[in-house]
Amino acid sequence: MADNAWIAVDAMGGDDGLAVMLAGVARARRRFEGMRFFLVGDEAQIAEGLKTHPNLSAASEIVHAPEIVGSNEKPSQAIRRARTTSMGIAIDLVKQRRAAAAVSSGNTGALMAMAKLSLRTLPGIDRPALAAPLPTLGDNDVVMLDLGANTECDARNLVQFAVMGAAYARILLELDNPRVALLNIGSEDQKGTDEIRDAAAVLRGQNHLPLNFTGFIEGNQLARGEVDVIVCDGFAGNIALKTAEGTARFVGDLLKRAFRSSTRSKIGFLISRPATQLLRDHLDPNNHNGAVFLGLNGVVVKSHGSANELGVATAIGNAAKMVRADLTRRIAEDLLNFEDAA
Amino acid sequence: MADNAWIAVDAMGGDDGLAVMLAGVARARRRFEGMRFFLVGDEAQIAEGLKTHPNLSAASEIVHAPEIVGSNEKPSQAIRRARTTSMGIAIDLVKQRRAAAAVSSGNTGALMAMAKLSLRTLPGIDRPALAAPLPTLGDNDVVMLDLGANTECDARNLVQFAVMGAAYARILLELDNPRVALLNIGSEDQKGTDEIRDAAAVLRGQNHLPLNFTGFIEGNQLARGEVDVIVCDGFAGNIALKTAEGTARFVGDLLKRAFRSSTRSKIGFLISRPATQLLRDHLDPNNHNGAVFLGLNGVVVKSHGSANELGVATAIGNAAKMVRADLTRRIAEDLLNFEDAA
Repeated sequence: MADNAWIAVDAMGGDDGLAVMLAGVARARRRFEGMRFFLVGDEAQIAEGLKTHPNLSAASEIVHAPEIVGSNEKPSQAIRRARTTSMGIAIDLVKQRRAAAAVSSGNTGALMAMAKLSLRTLPGIDRPALAAPLPTLGDNDVVMLDLGANTECDARNLVQFAVMGAAYARILLELDNPRVALLNIGSEDQKGTDEIRDAAAVLRGQNHLPLNFTGFIEGNQLARGEVDVIVCDGFAGNIALKTAEGTARFVGDLLKRAFRSSTRSKIGFLISRPATQLLRDHLDPNNHNGAVFLGLNGVVVKSHGSANELGVATAIGNAAKMVRADLTRRIAEDLLNFEDAA
Repeated sequence: MADNAWIAVDAMGGDDGLAVMLAGVARARRRFEGMRFFLVGDEAQIAEGLKTHPNLSAASEIVHAPEIVGSNEKPSQAIRRARTTSMGIAIDLVKQRRAAAAVSSGNTGALMAMAKLSLRTLPGIDRPALAAPLPTLGDNDVVMLDLGANTECDARNLVQFAVMGAAYARILLELDNPRVALLNIGSEDQKGTDEIRDAAAVLRGQNHLPLNFTGFIEGNQLARGEVDVIVCDGFAGNIALKTAEGTARFVGDLLKRAFRSSTRSKIGFLISRPATQLLRDHLDPNNHNGAVFLGLNGVVVKSHGSANELGVATAIGNAAKMVRADLTRRIAEDLLNFEDAA
């Protein structure tokens, strides 16, 4: 796919509004020269906002949308307003093949429902999955999926997630043969649910795809950098992701409390601040922003609602990488190879 | 129940062997005067080990066991050796009502299987659950269950876990009316599996028990101290517990790496060390050791295999608290009240 592809950005989604979205797109634009952007939302507001981003103006086109999907709006309601909302119109630009990807910081459930209905799943995919990169102790992030799109999954879903996650990791992490593991409550063969054990049996038996299935991984191993893709159902993935986020914040809060506990420790904190700042950067969700709905006819990226300018730029950068590497076609090919061999 | 009840300790379980177990029991003994201990294991080794703990000698009795359950032994195998292993004999002392509780640092699966077979579940309990206290930002730990005893659970199991967890929290955390929540992937009523939604409906409808059902809680809220009991199936509980452990260690490792990254930060670290030591103590698993199998005719406590002297003492202290507060009878009464009202 050409380097000058278009990305459709839902400019109205996100907790912090249009200004943060535009600043994030402008930042991403500087890194991905040649990329062009549909900025979807209120035409007058976007035109006004673009005045401070002349660089972005030259590389973008405004697409007017009169409405916005509410952050608490039910997916079933949002779907009915797909033709008039910034989120719905951004996805429709992908459907029309005018854009190669859509990015939104809005309501996740609505984005998932609209994207699935409008773009449909790839041949061989029963359900799309939400995948995101998470920080590790190793050199690379780890890709985890599903993070909440599918509460319950059968073995076939899990195997499809593994194939899609590996294709995604090959592009995002630039790996030839990603290590793929299933999240479980023990490493022994008999552990876990029937679905997980059955999926493991299928993945162990395959050797036609560029992925290295390493077996089961437990919750305490997620961030060790020992695998590149972690596969689970959306319930377990959501619990693990949010528990990891909550625990990192919890430890950070305890650390702050500890540093504030005495004058001596305050001084120590000030001295070691450059070091703790490095840690903060490494854990900053804005550096790992941009979950992708895998398995659709088109790239749809979910940016965190609370993402700042850096976070939005990271999410758009992820979308640009997927577009340039032609993620959708590669997943479709992997699935075909996998099914042929099965 | 009398303050001078007996606790049966599997003196041979645990990664670090007999010496750590005996030191831990001796330490707990100093806090719970009047408690007495069956020390179950190799008679000669225990007698030798007791020489350095005269205080414990006076309050304990050795019960010889010729064998040990292996850390990788399958539960089905371990059950067959219940009469000759230190773990099996410790549980049998509870069955015979010679001891009010059993404590082991050995193989969790074997302990669960033996305890269930030997002690049987309380009337009204279909399955026992593994519960443990976890650290929070609040003043109290939070009790979480099930942590891995039951991979899949129905709504009825989850409701029973809520009743048992609340009884446990009332004793361990000394609360009159603990706040109980179900772990889920969102706070809205329609989120999660059928089992979780059905359990929530039952718990919302009850008002006969001293527990305050607060609805759903997500993974990022576990450590906030906003609830006292978190209920989930053993799969989700195990994933959440291990993810929290792994993330806390991950952040700690990143912090160490950050502090070592320059001379300046090393100096800052040395100055603020008393503060970071406080944090380390707060997160030290040895301060939160001692998971309890709830729902059996008797108290069975699982100490972490890698627990040190402090950890073993914490686990034994938990067992002593349960015994003194007559946990088993209180759970049985709560269940009866709950069933009568239903």
